Amino acid sequence: MSDSMEVIENPVIGILDKKIVFVDTQKNRPPESYTAKEVLDMPGSIIMPGLINTHTHLPMTFFRGLADDVPLNKWLNDYIFPAEAKYLNKDTAYYGAMLAIAEMILSGTTTFCDGYFFEDSVVMAAKSTGMRAVCCQGFVDFPAPGIPDPAKNVQIAKSFIAKWKNVSSLICPALFCHSPYTCSPETLKNIKEVARNSKALFLTHLSETIKETQDIKQQYGNTPVRYLNSLGILDDSTVAVHCNFVDEDEIRIFADCGVKVSHNPESSMKLGAGVAPVPEMLKQGVIVGLGTDGCASNNDLDLLLEIDTTAKIHKLKTMNPTAMDTATVLRMATIEGAKTLGIEDKTGSIEAGKYADIIILDTNKPHMIPMYNCYSQIVYSASGADVSASIINGKIVMKDRQLLNMDVSDIMDRVRKIADNIKKDR
Amino acid sequence: MSDSMEVIENPVIGILDKKIVFVDTQKNRPPESYTAKEVLDMPGSIIMPGLINTHTHLPMTFFRGLADDVPLNKWLNDYIFPAEAKYLNKDTAYYGAMLAIAEMILSGTTTFCDGYFFEDSVVMAAKSTGMRAVCCQGFVDFPAPGIPDPAKNVQIAKSFIAKWKNVSSLICPALFCHSPYTCSPETLKNIKEVARNSKALFLTHLSETIKETQDIKQQYGNTPVRYLNSLGILDDSTVAVHCNFVDEDEIRIFADCGVKVSHNPESSMKLGAGVAPVPEMLKQGVIVGLGTDGCASNNDLDLLLEIDTTAKIHKLKTMNPTAMDTATVLRMATIEGAKTLGIEDKTGSIEAGKYADIIILDTNKPHMIPMYNCYSQIVYSASGADVSASIINGKIVMKDRQLLNMDVSDIMDRVRKIADNIKKDR
Repeated sequence: MSDSMEVIENPVIGILDKKIVFVDTQKNRPPESYTAKEVLDMPGSIIMPGLINTHTHLPMTFFRGLADDVPLNKWLNDYIFPAEAKYLNKDTAYYGAMLAIAEMILSGTTTFCDGYFFEDSVVMAAKSTGMRAVCCQGFVDFPAPGIPDPAKNVQIAKSFIAKWKNVSSLICPALFCHSPYTCSPETLKNIKEVARNSKALFLTHLSETIKETQDIKQQYGNTPVRYLNSLGILDDSTVAVHCNFVDEDEIRIFADCGVKVSHNPESSMKLGAGVAPVPEMLKQGVIVGLGTDGCASNNDLDLLLEIDTTAKIHKLKTMNPTAMDTATVLRMATIEGAKTLGIEDKTGSIEAGKYADIIILDTNKPHMIPMYNCYSQIVYSASGADVSASIINGKIVMKDRQLLNMDVSDIMDRVRKIADNIKKDR
Repeated sequence: MSDSMEVIENPVIGILDKKIVFVDTQKNRPPESYTAKEVLDMPGSIIMPGLINTHTHLPMTFFRGLADDVPLNKWLNDYIFPAEAKYLNKDTAYYGAMLAIAEMILSGTTTFCDGYFFEDSVVMAAKSTGMRAVCCQGFVDFPAPGIPDPAKNVQIAKSFIAKWKNVSSLICPALFCHSPYTCSPETLKNIKEVARNSKALFLTHLSETIKETQDIKQQYGNTPVRYLNSLGILDDSTVAVHCNFVDEDEIRIFADCGVKVSHNPESSMKLGAGVAPVPEMLKQGVIVGLGTDGCASNNDLDLLLEIDTTAKIHKLKTMNPTAMDTATVLRMATIEGAKTLGIEDKTGSIEAGKYADIIILDTNKPHMIPMYNCYSQIVYSASGADVSASIINGKIVMKDRQLLNMDVSDIMDRVRKIADNIKKDR
């Protein structure tokens, strides 16, 4: 996933401490030419950059399958907001995030960008597991989990950034306004100002449904993208999530302002919302990363499956089988995802100087055979269950499907017990 | 997947020889109430009917990833037909089918309906592995693999049915005309007549692309469905595959004639072809089963992923999140698939008297937790890799991800070696 998109057969990758120090062929670097504390020798595998999930809500693992196949408004107002109000707290957010991290590592994600409430708990989960993460504290204009008084939004935004900035090279704190329909113009501007002053990323759901575009037009006299632009929100530290309904001119606004887009096709399919015009975005030079969205709306965090769907859905939408090639999708899930989050100097490709965020896919399985083209195999045949090892920040966090630095049984038990209470309530 | 769609907690299923003899609760049938040669005790699992793949081309595993992201005509004429002509023979068809069967059993499929050339080899592969199968010999009007002279089509159709009819309760021989654009009206009528006379199923690709509907209209003066109807082809032993472009009246023709539809959404997405109007078909009472299509066009045989896509794609197409519920999709992948193939008296549900075709899903994994609704979990969170055991015709064929009656390493090696030759040619 370097600019040259080089595929190296029989490679050897040297890692020193947290970083990649060389990427070479085994012929150039025979075993006798280096010493290593530990060698992962995995013949017949694909070694690739760890996947980057640019949009999710980790603690929502708690609500996986709680309410499916209902419209967005009903889903939010009748199921999710009430469940969040009653069950979301510091502890449930932490264990929900831990469960999500287990699922993500087991399916090849090494970096996530989360936006939710009780975000301190998500940071703690990320830190305890060694994941690379952009953690965005969430904001709405009504009492929210952890923020009973929305008048304190700005204060909480400032203290969240201050608390987690420079704590670890793995964690970037950031800010997330839920949407233009749940945040006033003032909230959007104020939170963006805090982000700008602290050089933090700013995220928001944007133009997800037709209803949203109609409501915003009615309330503010313009489409969501133009409205946010008129507020001065849009810049190159802004990630707009979904963007299913944006026209040519709005894509031009994104390109001109340097706005990045997080594309979450499965969530928008399941919601019956729409498909973002990603080929047009790419044509205009907009950076696009991939995301799974939260587990209440997808219902999994398997980015390899999202890659498959992305490659297929744009072919269908455009009725053109050449509309989205495998290399483009793989870049969106890796290096372009890193650019979306502004961390492309750290991760997203396997190159000397970058942090070692690497996954290994087992190809010794019936569905991965034969191997004419590794891109095809990763995009169209692999799923998260094919990831056999994962390295984050130079550290092996998963090997042979076993998570090495978390007690996953304990986490699953805790989540099950809390979910039993939610179940009784239904 | 019985008519009552009953979900039994803590069930016990009794199997004698090949058939299910009882389905009950553990409370009603405590361990001391029965004796069993073998007990599979799998707490925390979902036990469900084995999946039924109503349309695939097994030996095409050989061409998985050989040519992706190109238009159907180019894909067929420049890549697939030449590769088939050069590399497909009795042996490659057998080993390609064996690889496909390994992949299918490992991902929860217990019954498949195949349509291809050298179909004797597919039958042999099915027989040697114990899969339940409808095996359709394929026909076109030009020299094809195994049928150099299309004038012999009828003779070969007759002898194929005669050879495999009543050989095993697991195997149903059937006939497959590739499409109305590769078969003349005479071929379609003649092959259908052979099928009718021998009470065998007749399959054909139908109304897959806009181009097909335009070409058939131009050549025969009518849309593909109306054209086949005018030939007297359509009846309740006909399975029409794809059907992306059918209008209300054509769906009514299907309903009136009893034609079944095999829906293969991922293949049609990848091809940029379209989405079959399945909700309208179901509304008019048409039986619809699911299929993966061949590995050269999907590129896997994982029906659980196809289930997920089916549930989502119709919500997107109709912009309605309630358009395709989880129970409906699960029925399409099991009992409705059995009805599609005319074998609903044998398989498709877990009921006393049916053959024991059963799969077990492991829910003790992060992405399967918590469990509010087992349908949601199977449809939206599970993939083929979650299938921990598989029983076909009362026999355990896979347990703990290990295939019990095939040497999968040997098969993978053979396919790899043949694929190396195909690779050199490119």
